Amino acid sequence: MKRAFDELKPYLDQAMALNTALVLFEWDNETLAPEEAGGLTGRVIGLLSGQYFQAVNNEQVVALAKQCEAEGNLTEAEAAQVKELEKELEKLSHIPRKEYEEFARLTAESTRVWAKAKETNDFSCFAPVLKKVLEYQKKFAGYRAKAGEKLMDVMLKDYEPGFTTELLDQFFDVIRREIVPLFHEVRDSKVQIPDEFLTGDFSDETQEKIGRFVAEYTGFDFRKGVMAVSAHPFTTNLHNKDVRITTHYTNRLDSSLFSIIHETGHAIYEFGIRDDLTQTMVGQGASMAMHESQSRFFENIIGRSRSFWEPIYPKLQEAFSENLGKVSLEEFVKAVNKAQAGLIRTEADELTYSLHILVRYELEKELIEGNLQVEDLPGAWADKYEEYLGIRPETVAEGVLQDIHWSQGSFGYFPSYALGNAFGAQLYYHMKKEMDIDGLLAAGKLSVIRDYLREHVHQYGKLKDSRQILKDATGEDFDPGYYVKYLKEKYKALYQLS
Amino acid sequence: MKRAFDELKPYLDQAMALNTALVLFEWDNETLAPEEAGGLTGRVIGLLSGQYFQAVNNEQVVALAKQCEAEGNLTEAEAAQVKELEKELEKLSHIPRKEYEEFARLTAESTRVWAKAKETNDFSCFAPVLKKVLEYQKKFAGYRAKAGEKLMDVMLKDYEPGFTTELLDQFFDVIRREIVPLFHEVRDSKVQIPDEFLTGDFSDETQEKIGRFVAEYTGFDFRKGVMAVSAHPFTTNLHNKDVRITTHYTNRLDSSLFSIIHETGHAIYEFGIRDDLTQTMVGQGASMAMHESQSRFFENIIGRSRSFWEPIYPKLQEAFSENLGKVSLEEFVKAVNKAQAGLIRTEADELTYSLHILVRYELEKELIEGNLQVEDLPGAWADKYEEYLGIRPETVAEGVLQDIHWSQGSFGYFPSYALGNAFGAQLYYHMKKEMDIDGLLAAGKLSVIRDYLREHVHQYGKLKDSRQILKDATGEDFDPGYYVKYLKEKYKALYQLS
Repeated sequence: MKRAFDELKPYLDQAMALNTALVLFEWDNETLAPEEAGGLTGRVIGLLSGQYFQAVNNEQVVALAKQCEAEGNLTEAEAAQVKELEKELEKLSHIPRKEYEEFARLTAESTRVWAKAKETNDFSCFAPVLKKVLEYQKKFAGYRAKAGEKLMDVMLKDYEPGFTTELLDQFFDVIRREIVPLFHEVRDSKVQIPDEFLTGDFSDETQEKIGRFVAEYTGFDFRKGVMAVSAHPFTTNLHNKDVRITTHYTNRLDSSLFSIIHETGHAIYEFGIRDDLTQTMVGQGASMAMHESQSRFFENIIGRSRSFWEPIYPKLQEAFSENLGKVSLEEFVKAVNKAQAGLIRTEADELTYSLHILVRYELEKELIEGNLQVEDLPGAWADKYEEYLGIRPETVAEGVLQDIHWSQGSFGYFPSYALGNAFGAQLYYHMKKEMDIDGLLAAGKLSVIRDYLREHVHQYGKLKDSRQILKDATGEDFDPGYYVKYLKEKYKALYQLS
Repeated sequence: MKRAFDELKPYLDQAMALNTALVLFEWDNETLAPEEAGGLTGRVIGLLSGQYFQAVNNEQVVALAKQCEAEGNLTEAEAAQVKELEKELEKLSHIPRKEYEEFARLTAESTRVWAKAKETNDFSCFAPVLKKVLEYQKKFAGYRAKAGEKLMDVMLKDYEPGFTTELLDQFFDVIRREIVPLFHEVRDSKVQIPDEFLTGDFSDETQEKIGRFVAEYTGFDFRKGVMAVSAHPFTTNLHNKDVRITTHYTNRLDSSLFSIIHETGHAIYEFGIRDDLTQTMVGQGASMAMHESQSRFFENIIGRSRSFWEPIYPKLQEAFSENLGKVSLEEFVKAVNKAQAGLIRTEADELTYSLHILVRYELEKELIEGNLQVEDLPGAWADKYEEYLGIRPETVAEGVLQDIHWSQGSFGYFPSYALGNAFGAQLYYHMKKEMDIDGLLAAGKLSVIRDYLREHVHQYGKLKDSRQILKDATGEDFDPGYYVKYLKEKYKALYQLS
């Protein structure tokens, strides 16, 4: 007799194929598609999203999913797929297909409007579109909310199951209580770290060439991946044999360099998903925060360490000889770890990074709760930056328009970045007990580190949730104390604080 | 009451969306996708093709198409869509969905195997895949063939409706009778045309920069289009606001230049399709030969004329100053029109071009009729080149592996190239009666020429077939005599023949 899962499989495959097509359209949209294609391509994306909706959310699928559970003859991977499907059904079954399609079409357009608005430094052309995106997301969350459930909690579920607004409020309290004073100490310290040599007139070609080298050195496999340019760096994947990262080139040599290491961290996660899980509903990273834990682990804990650069710094000096020719490894490493208030999240140092997230988290909450209007965002944004970081953006391009996320409808996504830092620190202190990380880096043996993470984190995809992965890997439940410990150790040493 | 067409429309839209996704995957596959992605992405392509198959070929669609005809209340564009749908149904309804999906998966893979085989100059790794592709196409044609109908005729229908093997045999007889002797006269002429200055060590960057300029000058609209690099230049489009061309860079400066003008001709056609037709089943060029007529019109009749280069030759000289600095416009134009036997079709001059097609047409026929085995192709190919062009390829890369088409399953496609030349010549002699083409080119007014073609050819998409377009535009039925006349006039003058 055929199992219910075997009957379900073709539906899941159809959904996977449609989803992969949507991923490719998104990639193309961000990296290549011509300016005027948006409207008509948006129609295609809307229709494909509708088909995805239909492939997942139909009577047969709902019945087969129930039957799968009743039969109870599933492998671990199959059971996880059914569970993931039910999560997706919970989401989709509450949203009318027409609205779902409209929303897909809208976000294809809104990301383009955002890019244009950022380019022209004009919030007013973006505001009406963002307003629509927000209204859709609130409406969708409203459809799904259980009695008394906060809209923000519904949204958070899609990115980090198990982390509610209540828990996040506590987490960000720790950041406010521990990291803000630490940042003030650093700011007031007398230690001056020169970093003017990081700025210059670098050609895209030079940056790309060394960027590709560093990506490959960190673990990006170009036989299974592509690197391109987009307004905002991101990683996406069609499956575990096609993982794609982007970067952008500026007049700071560390900007594209560390964004590439960051996206490579994401990519290493996706390359590491087991072959039997890729192209299934559990064939992605466990959660957004777990993904960020990997990207930020590689970018910061690994990528900003002295040992990482030890074997390859001469190569970097050669690429940027005019700027780095006379800069020692020590000076370079100090410079790329310099903590200072800045306006751009993706270029923030490790210490101030979570303060950028704090701003976004608080604004998101207010937008969703209706206490803040979209029109008032630029001002509210500037006020929060002044409050937490002591500086105020002079343009919307370096203010509220810097991130793509809200244009995509990703409200509730930003907290994952801060959580990711905390996950990464917890993993790091555990790994240090098992291996000599600095020794490995100095010897250029990054593969040992990648293999460890692959074994304990990457391979599972969504078979386990982020909290379980942390528990199994470190023997402990999530503990943000490691993150605080890590920042204190690092920045007290760097700034010679007691 | 709702018309049957309004009920049919959502099915057509779904099919369009799936088809657009397949186009994007094909583009990505040829231009960007990483080496190892093929297998898993092939699975996605197979599944999407199956969904396309299902969207078009199902009971409701078949019934609605019939009902549309019975109701008889269709606009011209709607009627054309229903007609096109029925053509598609004729094709699909004979092919089992499973085989259709397998074939889609196979060709995604086979184009990669072809690229690899060409790169490594190894026919043996490609032969088994090509054999499978050919067998599928023969099987599919067999399913569709009416009693006594030739398999080749079934295949031709998909590219150039109305042109049977019988007609093509006659057409190629004209070429054999008229063009082969003309080529011999040219070859034996004492006129020597120097062209060594076209060869050099040109950087991709230089070629790309001037290539983009020439594309734009010819009429490529970068707000609605993209230019990239692939093994074999091609044009594709998602719709009339997203048209994409590729080129490749070699040590001949005219190679990428004229391939770009060629693909721009295709692109101008797709840009010119009416807005109410794009994203429908008739929103593409009328036929393959009509498409080629436009690409080859721009590449050869326009692009290789003295008047075309008159305003922009200084710019070209500047880009390639080392090679062209001391070459006069006259010498350059003569060089890019030089006729000589060569091995590569896409780099062939206008005179020998049809002989390259003659080789392929004859080989295709033999393959399909079973008189030639795939394993024997390299030898048979070389023999035909020796027979018609007097030269023999020394490697398979410059022989049978030079074209992508067969790897895609496009048997019966090549004749369109020769037909396209003939369509273009017929249009040209008619246009000359209406406008001073050389005067317009010398004044840089290409838009007048584009506008004429848009009005008489491009805008209609598939509303009319190629023969009807020719009739309406020129007042005459298809007449290959114009093609012979054009080549004779041009080459007798160039080689000072009587």
